[in-house]
Amino acid sequence: MARYQAILAYDGTDFKGFQRQAGKTEKRTVQSVFEAALKNIGWTGRAVLSAGRTDTGVHASGQVAAFDLEWQHSADQLLAALNAHLPSDVAVREVQTVTPGFHPRYDAVCRSYEYRLFADPVRDPRRERYAWRIWPDVNLERMQTGTSCLPGTHDFRSFGRAPHSGGSTIRAIYQADWHIDREDFIFEIRGSGFLYRMVRKLVGFLVEIGQERVEPETMKVLLQEKSPELVKSIAPAHGLTLVAVEYESIKLEQ
Amino acid sequence: MARYQAILAYDGTDFKGFQRQAGKTEKRTVQSVFEAALKNIGWTGRAVLSAGRTDTGVHASGQVAAFDLEWQHSADQLLAALNAHLPSDVAVREVQTVTPGFHPRYDAVCRSYEYRLFADPVRDPRRERYAWRIWPDVNLERMQTGTSCLPGTHDFRSFGRAPHSGGSTIRAIYQADWHIDREDFIFEIRGSGFLYRMVRKLVGFLVEIGQERVEPETMKVLLQEKSPELVKSIAPAHGLTLVAVEYESIKLEQ
Repeated sequence: MARYQAILAYDGTDFKGFQRQAGKTEKRTVQSVFEAALKNIGWTGRAVLSAGRTDTGVHASGQVAAFDLEWQHSADQLLAALNAHLPSDVAVREVQTVTPGFHPRYDAVCRSYEYRLFADPVRDPRRERYAWRIWPDVNLERMQTGTSCLPGTHDFRSFGRAPHSGGSTIRAIYQADWHIDREDFIFEIRGSGFLYRMVRKLVGFLVEIGQERVEPETMKVLLQEKSPELVKSIAPAHGLTLVAVEYESIKLEQ
Repeated sequence: MARYQAILAYDGTDFKGFQRQAGKTEKRTVQSVFEAALKNIGWTGRAVLSAGRTDTGVHASGQVAAFDLEWQHSADQLLAALNAHLPSDVAVREVQTVTPGFHPRYDAVCRSYEYRLFADPVRDPRRERYAWRIWPDVNLERMQTGTSCLPGTHDFRSFGRAPHSGGSTIRAIYQADWHIDREDFIFEIRGSGFLYRMVRKLVGFLVEIGQERVEPETMKVLLQEKSPELVKSIAPAHGLTLVAVEYESIKLEQ
């Protein structure tokens, strides 16, 4: 029996989020289809561990899961066996053994998200599957100004609630910036952790800044004064991707 | 009553191709959902005209349809009304009035397709929605050599059959080449018209060349000797996009 870490990529469109849900009619979640694939190759565990939930419709290129498994073959063969049992909208990108105590959520030191959006007055089906279509167009410089105060340790109460009631709303942001990929605006953010819906609320507010409905300086005020009632907009789930979860390398088994 | 031309974009994944199909249980096709949207705004025609069928799973960013409609408002309002009635995987990108005799198929002077693929030994759900994942990797130079003999007028019998039995298999190719977009290989081809599944058979054969299973010179031989039995592979539909259909500008109503 060894503990394995798996990097998962998925198209979140047809999933009710990552986490398996209790209930009479089981919802299709990433965790439930991943556990079903594991059971097909002999896993008898109760639940896989994960780096964090993603909401309904949110995508991932680097979600991390961990599980204990009796497996006689190589990690590459485990990867192939799992992918053979997973549906087309989720795949294991990498598998490796880790130390028995490894926990993908508690051991994570950094999480990276990407939010993609583009400005167009007319619907565009393929682009909109993985990006938020906005209109009117945004002023990138204004959004960059609004973003510049995010790095650092702040109380993000204006932009979300703690996963557990009464939990801290203070988070450390290591990096936050915008870049342009062709005609898409891409927001990249890295931090110790994120409040519930925090990235989508930040993006919703930054787009209001970009569309000149709010002044860029308001972002700084919200981090100081905490006024959740001023943050009304939330960017839709389908533009968001969990890109990577980072660990201290010593956690990996050599 | 005026004739309108509409540029359609769609994600072909969940459509049984473009063309409406007769039968007891109606299949979900782009034509059928587009005609349903038109009926919602008062269209009473029998069938829309189109630039051509696309197969099950093939995408489009520039399919062209035409229809006659009594419409009192602007073309922009028609576009908005149609998009309000279309599902999320198909949209009208542009609408304009054209001369009453305009026919999107017979008046077309050029069609452009794009085929996207990438090399990766492991499944990647979001990338694979719009691109073919191949392995082993391909040698781009070999594929370019194989592609270089395509421009010109050739009998493409080795790469497909005419839409109607006994029809000509001669087609004029104006341009065909490969370029790289990040780690995707993109094949662009423009021509007077294409045989049934011709682009996918060309790409399937060019990948065999790129994977060093066939010599690049074989492409030229196939255009001269016509040996459909040698072309066994066909690239999957989900990597293909109908990008544009071109017309002589005089057909548009000013």
